[in-house]
Amino acid sequence: MSDTLIRLAEILEQRKQATADTSYVASLHAKGLNKILEKVGEECTETLLAAKDCQHSDDKSQLIYETADLWFHTLVMLSHLGLGPQDILAELERRFDLSGLAEKASRKQQG
Amino acid sequence: MSDTLIRLAEILEQRKQATADTSYVASLHAKGLNKILEKVGEECTETLLAAKDCQHSDDKSQLIYETADLWFHTLVMLSHLGLGPQDILAELERRFDLSGLAEKASRKQQG
Amino acid sequence: MSDTLIRLAEILEQRKQATADTSYVASLHAKGLNKILEKVGEECTETLLAAKDCQHSDDKSQLIYETADLWFHTLVMLSHLGLGPQDILAELERRFDLSGLAEKASRKQQG
Amino acid sequence: MSDTLIRLAEILEQRKQATADTSYVASLHAKGLNKILEKVGEECTETLLAAKDCQHSDDKSQLIYETADLWFHTLVMLSHLGLGPQDILAELERRFDLSGLAEKASRKQQG
Repeated sequence: MSDTLIRLAEILEQRKQATADTSYVASLHAKGLNKILEKVGEECTETLLAAKDCQHSDDKSQLIYETADLWFHTLVMLSHLGLGPQDILAELERRFDLSGLAEKASRKQQG
Repeated sequence: MSDTLIRLAEILEQRKQATADTSYVASLHAKGLNKILEKVGEECTETLLAAKDCQHSDDKSQLIYETADLWFHTLVMLSHLGLGPQDILAELERRFDLSGLAEKASRKQQG
Repeated sequence: MSDTLIRLAEILEQRKQATADTSYVASLHAKGLNKILEKVGEECTETLLAAKDCQHSDDKSQLIYETADLWFHTLVMLSHLGLGPQDILAELERRFDLSGLAEKASRKQQG
Repeated sequence: MSDTLIRLAEILEQRKQATADTSYVASLHAKGLNKILEKVGEECTETLLAAKDCQHSDDKSQLIYETADLWFHTLVMLSHLGLGPQDILAELERRFDLSGLAEKASRKQQG
């Protein structure tokens, strides 16, 4: 499952080049930034509503579906603005010192 | 950079067990689902505003920062509801047939 | 222009009783609370984007249009949950002591 | 209760001129459009969460409170961009032919 977002972003870059009538991703890029951001906002709202419904139901499939939609559309947004998931993941790595942690864990195993 | 979200989720699970006054993550869990979802909504709004500002500026650091915040708080939300990034990544893999693509690519290299 | 929201709410109550295929409002009620809240979230996002576009354009018609949509859908939400604009306006009156101000203004004119 | 939003907007225009340390409204204007829009987005999220909580509770006070906050901050946004509630109410009047309806009702009473 490693690097799923990176591989997905590669697919999104390919689809960005497609014609708008054959690719949903290409059609979003053609409609422009506002349309892409509207979708990000929409999927965020649907994620919140699905999360609230989890408080009264054991079925979490809707939340998984909507969060996937939210992440997917943030990837399209990043792509539209010349960025990719690696920029966000590097920020999270830096913020949580994840590479440092990985290093320490690897030293521990060696030691 | 592989599996950044998975490793981050592991840290979030550890911090979930901490006391609310020593950990921001623990304090969010203590405040409950609504507080966590408010943060997800807030970070989504800040992401949209930062993306709009990219239309008139070359500095994309704010967008990277806010998108990292958005993804981070969706991870806290998933953790609060007994889910993790692997659930979302598996949904995206399934949806985009990413494992299939990986398989085909690996066969191609072998062949 | 007085009481526009109150009169609009009366129309919305009438349309709530209509059949879903003849009235947009009735169709929203039939689809349920989540659908109505999705619309509120959507219109909020579109309002934010239109407001950002006002920073670089003199045309404010889109912002007026989207804010009207946002207020309209909050009225449908209130109606769905047995409330109306008068509940929100009373809260604002109370919070800003608007009736008090109106009273003082009227005393001033008389005095 | 007539014209509550109009009277509230008048107060907001006065406070816009105040110093940022004595007035919440003035402090929002001083922080700029993004801060104001962040508040609109925040209050929208809190409104959605309060509406969801109404599905499992008879207490609607939180929803009234959050919707008032949402309307209030949209008024600050309009003020910041040189608009007012009358612009939105006129759009709703036009869209729903409310003045027309009022006219018809008044003719009916006279007849």
